[in-house]
Parts: sequence; C-alpha cells; structure tokens
Amino acid sequence: MALDDAALKKFGFIPREPKDAINIDPLQTGGKLTEEARRALLEWGDGYSVCDFCGGVLDLIKKPPIEELVHSALPEFLNTDAVRLTHGARESKFAVMHSIAKEGDYMVLDKVAHYSSFVAAQRARLNVVTVPHSESPEYRTDAEGYATVIEEVINKTGRPPALAQVTYPDGSYGNLADVKRISDICHSYDVPLMVNGAYSVGRMPIDAKALGADFIVGSGHKSMASSGPIGILGVREEYADTVFAKSPTHPAKEVELLGCTVRGAPVMTMIASFPHVVQRTRNWDNEVADARWFSSRMADLGIVQKGERPHNHDLMFFEAPVFYEISQKAKKGRYFLYRELKERNIHGIKSGLTKYFKLSTYQVGRDNLKYVADSFEEIIEKHRTA
Amino acid sequence: MALDDAALKKFGFIPREPKDAINIDPLQTGGKLTEEARRALLEWGDGYSVCDFCGGVLDLIKKPPIEELVHSALPEFLNTDAVRLTHGARESKFAVMHSIAKEGDYMVLDKVAHYSSFVAAQRARLNVVTVPHSESPEYRTDAEGYATVIEEVINKTGRPPALAQVTYPDGSYGNLADVKRISDICHSYDVPLMVNGAYSVGRMPIDAKALGADFIVGSGHKSMASSGPIGILGVREEYADTVFAKSPTHPAKEVELLGCTVRGAPVMTMIASFPHVVQRTRNWDNEVADARWFSSRMADLGIVQKGERPHNHDLMFFEAPVFYEISQKAKKGRYFLYRELKERNIHGIKSGLTKYFKLSTYQVGRDNLKYVADSFEEIIEKHRTA
Ligand SMILES: Cc1ncc(COP(=O)(O)O)c(C=O)c1O
Ligand SMILES: Cc1ncc(COP(=O)(O)O)c(C=O)c1O
Repeated sequence: MALDDAALKKFGFIPREPKDAINIDPLQTGGKLTEEARRALLEWGDGYSVCDFCGGVLDLIKKPPIEELVHSALPEFLNTDAVRLTHGARESKFAVMHSIAKEGDYMVLDKVAHYSSFVAAQRARLNVVTVPHSESPEYRTDAEGYATVIEEVINKTGRPPALAQVTYPDGSYGNLADVKRISDICHSYDVPLMVNGAYSVGRMPIDAKALGADFIVGSGHKSMASSGPIGILGVREEYADTVFAKSPTHPAKEVELLGCTVRGAPVMTMIASFPHVVQRTRNWDNEVADARWFSSRMADLGIVQKGERPHNHDLMFFEAPVFYEISQKAKKGRYFLYRELKERNIHGIKSGLTKYFKLSTYQVGRDNLKYVADSFEEIIEKHRTA
Repeated sequence: MALDDAALKKFGFIPREPKDAINIDPLQTGGKLTEEARRALLEWGDGYSVCDFCGGVLDLIKKPPIEELVHSALPEFLNTDAVRLTHGARESKFAVMHSIAKEGDYMVLDKVAHYSSFVAAQRARLNVVTVPHSESPEYRTDAEGYATVIEEVINKTGRPPALAQVTYPDGSYGNLADVKRISDICHSYDVPLMVNGAYSVGRMPIDAKALGADFIVGSGHKSMASSGPIGILGVREEYADTVFAKSPTHPAKEVELLGCTVRGAPVMTMIASFPHVVQRTRNWDNEVADARWFSSRMADLGIVQKGERPHNHDLMFFEAPVFYEISQKAKKGRYFLYRELKERNIHGIKSGLTKYFKLSTYQVGRDNLKYVADSFEEIIEKHRTA
C-alpha cells in the first residue's frame, strides 16, 4: 500500500454504525459510557493527558483524584486491600499469574474460563489444569472439583498448584459459582484464589473478602462504563508486595505494571462514571429481575435459557431451535436473524448465529427488553406464516 | 472511605486545567489529538466499541479499517514486515523481550534508555548490560560501545546477548544515535536489534529496514496524535512467528498480545489521525528547523542546549544557570519559573525545575515558539531588574 492521498483517504474519522441501536451484546451493555464519561473523554483525550499531573507514579496523582479512586474508593468498593489500574481483565490476570507463579508451575482454571485466562496462563508459561462443569443444561462449576484437581496436582508434582482462578460469573452462561466454598477449599491447600470479575465488578455488589478472593479482577470497558482499554486488579495485603514489587533500579516503579498502565483518557472516564457505577451495583436486584423476566418471555417462545435457572445475572445463553428451523428455509439462511434484528435496530447477537446465542439484559431497561422480546416473537410469527 | 454521596461527589467529570495552554512537555506535543481523532473518540468511546465488528481477531477487523491500518498502512509507513497494536511503547518492548529472550538471558540497553526499558527487562527477568554515553555536553551513545558490551557478555556467558535495544531518539537529550552502525554491529554477532521509536515513529520519517531494525516500537499517545494507551510494534518477518506465536489451545489468539490489546477507542483515534501523522512526518525538516531556531534563541539568553548540536530532533535538554540564580532569590524559590510560565499560559516544564529542564518544540509552530522564547526573555528581564 503506497501511502498516497487515495490510500490516506481510507483512514480519518470513521462513523460507527450500531451506535444508536439497542445493543444486547454482553461485551457492550456494561461498558456504555455515562454522559459524564463522554465529557471526560473529550476533555482528557489528548495522548498522555493525565501525565501532566504526574509526579512519577500514575496512581498517586492527587488532582485529578486518581489516587483517591485507586487507593481509597476502589478498595472500599471491592473490599480488597490494594488496587491498581491495568489495561483490562486479561492484563490483570497475567500480572498475577506472572508474579505469583513461576514458569512451569501449575494453576487451576475453571473449564468455563474465558479464553484470555488460558492465554494469560500460556503467556506466563504455566501448566493449566481445569475444573469441569456439569455440562448441559446448567454448565455449573462444581466447587468440590477444585479439591479433586488440586489433589491431582499434588499427586503429580508433590506440591499444590501456585494459583487457582474462578470466573464469576463465567462469560458463556452467566453462572455465579459458589466462590466462598471454592476459596475455602483452595485455602485449605494454601492455594491463593483469583476471582475474575470481568462480568461482575461494576455490575453487581462485590465483596472480595467475603468471597475469600486473594485477587479480584475487573474490566473497565466491559463492566464499569469506561472507555477501553482499562481494568482493575485488587490484591490482598499479603500478596501486594509480590504482585506490585518495585523495580530494583527505579524504586518508584512497579515492575508488573511496567511503571504505569492507563496513561490517558480511560482512567478519567472511570472516574467520571464511578458515582453511577457505584449506584447501579446497588440496584442489582432489579437487573436480576429484568433478566429473569426476559428469560421467561423467551421460554414462552420456545427459546430455552441454559445455565442456572432461575438466573442470577444479566448474561444469558439461549438455545433457540425455532430460529434454527427457520434458518433452514429462510432466504438469507443463517443470517436471517441478524438481519431481522438489525432492521429493528437491535444489535448484539452475532451474525450467523441462530440455534445458540448469548445476550445481556444489563441496563437495557424493561421497556427496551419488552421491545426485544416482542421483536423475537414477531420474527418467529413472520417466518412461521411465510 | 465510605462510598456515600459526599465521597462520590469527588468523582464524576473533572475539568482539565492546562487544556488550552501552549504545552511544550515532550510527553504531550506529539500526542495532541487531531480534530478527526476528537470526533472519533466520542463516536467510539463506549467500552469495547470496536469489538462489535470483531470476528475473533482485533487486528483483522475490516470495517472499520483496522486490518488495513495494521497490516498494510503501518508496515508501509515504517517499512517493516509485521505490525501489531499494543498498549504503548513499553508494552511493545516487553512483548519482544518476553518472547525473544528467556529468563536469565542477557540483553543490551543504551544507558540513555527510558526507565520503562529497564523495567520491561526486569519484568522479563533478563540481565541488562548497558552501553555508556559520552557524558556532558553531548551524551552521545557510541555505536562501537555495542561491540564492547556484546563481547563482554560473550566472555562472561559463552554466548551473545539475546537482544539489544537502542533508543531513537533518547527521551532525555533527543539524540539520534547511529542506528545503522549499531544494527550492523549487533547483526555481526547475530544479536537482533530493537529500536525504541517512542519519540520518532509518527514524528519523523522512519525506515526500519534502512535502520536495520529487527523490531521497531512506537507510542501512539506520545507521537501519533492518538488517545492513550496505544502503541505499535513492527517485527521483521523472521521473528514474527516467535513474537506473535499463536495459542496452542486458541489458535486465532496471539499469546503475547493476550488475544487482543486496544479493544476500544484508542485505535479509532489512531486511524483518525493517521493521514495527518503521515503528512507531518513528511514535514520533519521544518520541525528540525524550528527546534534549531529555538535552541539558538535560548543560547542568546545564556540557556545552553545539551545533546547533539546542531540538534536533529524537537526534544531538547537545556541547562539554564540564569534561572537557577534567579531561583536562589525569587519569592517562590524554585517554583518561580513554573508560575511565571503558567501566568503566560505556557505549560510543560516540570514544577520546581530551573537549572535543567527538557522541552519539545514539536508542532508548536514558529509563532508560539517565538512567544515562548520571548516569555523566557521577559522572565529573565523581570527578575534581573527586580
Ligand atoms: C469472563 C471474561 N473474562 C475476561 C474477559 C476479558 O476482559 P478484558 O477485555 O477486560 O480483558 C472477558 C471478555 O469477554 C470475559 O468474558
Ligand atoms: C524514550 C521513551 N521511550 C518510551 C517511553 C514510554 O512510552 P509509552 O508510554 O508508550 O510506554 C517514553 C516515555 O516517556 C520515552 O521517553
């Protein structure tokens, strides 16, 4: 590609299409910016904007109140001891794996873990053993499975794994595992537990100490109404010196953070949205009620929610044989559902999926959810009679 | 901190103070957004916005043209084989160090390297040996020093270091080392060379192949008019399979990138600014002329530019005995300079510095530079006569 005028015209400002759609993609519902965050983005958009105020440690910047966010508000919000900003959930997980475990060590993941957990463990060059789930229809992670897997590692290597992780909730079925029981089991073997709260921190109340989490991971762009990439990492006191170890040559700089992480606008959007995010986690019961209501509307249409039922989270996985049947005959084949929804300004079910899909009801609101459910019904009617 | 209404009021939208100032902080001059990038920020600000269009690999998204940026335009722009997005220069450097070298290996850094290079090497658990500079007044990195240091590693360990790095230019004096000579030396020992172009990629023309760079690193928020955090990493073909190795369990996902990196607005600001960034690198001679002009105005005031002279980059380091003298008697002591400049709407020389400081003339423009130089003169006059 020669970088002439014609080529350069392909870049520049690009409009975003489904900007005003009702977006039920689980990746998107919790990351939508508040109005305050949109203002903060423009105000702080330039390059390294926040670094104008930095005395050498990003998370100690007093004005704007990054220090207060990171060292007071977030520890309180999560009930954990030490918090830092990262580039996302996966980067938080890698920082823990890389600092707590050594190359070749074993770690435990739940089989429902997000791909990025497996990849982070591979980047840290760890051996992974997995705790199975109960398969269809509930796909539950059995807490006792952690004991089984830890015992297996001990039998094989003579010592327990360096770390265990649980996804809370998992990103496929939205199941909330029994973390308290899992942490009790892990701790009885002296195995520290990381809780991946990419889909919980910022959506629902989280109390890391009550869960027994030694490490708690959150995703700003996924669940804290922040502009990506930004994540958070909470660590129990006894592990903080290890995970946040300082550089031997540059004693103000933390090695796992490479000195600093989100040097730009994303942290200012997190600060801007924080009051709203705190408030919305206090309204979690309503969100669960919305999810259950939506699940039962789907059931009426023959679309079956998998995972825990009644469900306890906005992320839900559905099996829709009715859409699969339609796709066998529809003009656009398996793309019909995506197009029908798009025509109705609904976005977020991946193009080409019909039989199985996931969606999120988070912050969509009962009126919009009703519109989405009515649209599913209408689409079924339309193709049944066609 | 109890998260009650009073506490939450501390967060929300926070205005940015030196927003409209003339900013000569080297961290800021190349990261200022274009108007297109400001529009892109608002358009794509929500959480994971670009992921709406992702088929599983971020840098293969066709619409918006991320694939074209990453796989056509940027390789052409830098004359390198394979490019990926990262969270910044330091994250690019860590990815290379972590994938190319093994724990305990040796690597070479120039002594003028940015702290984040040292910290990245520490995170990768490498041993670092450094190539000295020539000390005051030029602080030049001697290319032949790479041979000396490589020989030392060979004598000590029986084999050459796994990697060498050069900072081009360095972040303290803005010196442009003789990279071609350095790469020839490194290659004669089979040592691959990484060029840290945090202050060059996006500011001046860069031809990685002509430089002999096996790895080229850029910083979007520092030098590509992009909203942070975002960086780029260019890799020569023969190393691409190693640095960008795929996950054994998730074959579409690259392990060092944890699957994906800038999942949000920053990449859209890079796309938005790209035409401008390409154009401005073609105007580099004017930028160098501005820097030299400014340096000579400073010289007239008894403020001496250190580093290469005549200078070849917008980042310059000054020694200002005149400001130091004033600070000994001024009311605000060593804070007088910061305050005098602030009163004149000039930002970017760190508060408290008087005798030594660095600044950047990049994209400031001759008129504003004249105003800055006149302001320095005025401040000296004012305090001389006081
Ligand atoms: C359960 C789960 N964890 C982690 C992630 C990754 O989050 P991040 O992009 O912040 O790394 C995802 C993304 O979908 C997820 O579903
Ligand atoms: C020479 C040099 N390299 C790298 C960096 C870090 O860039 P980034 O923030 O993109 O990691 C800096 C920051 O000041 C620098 O001066």
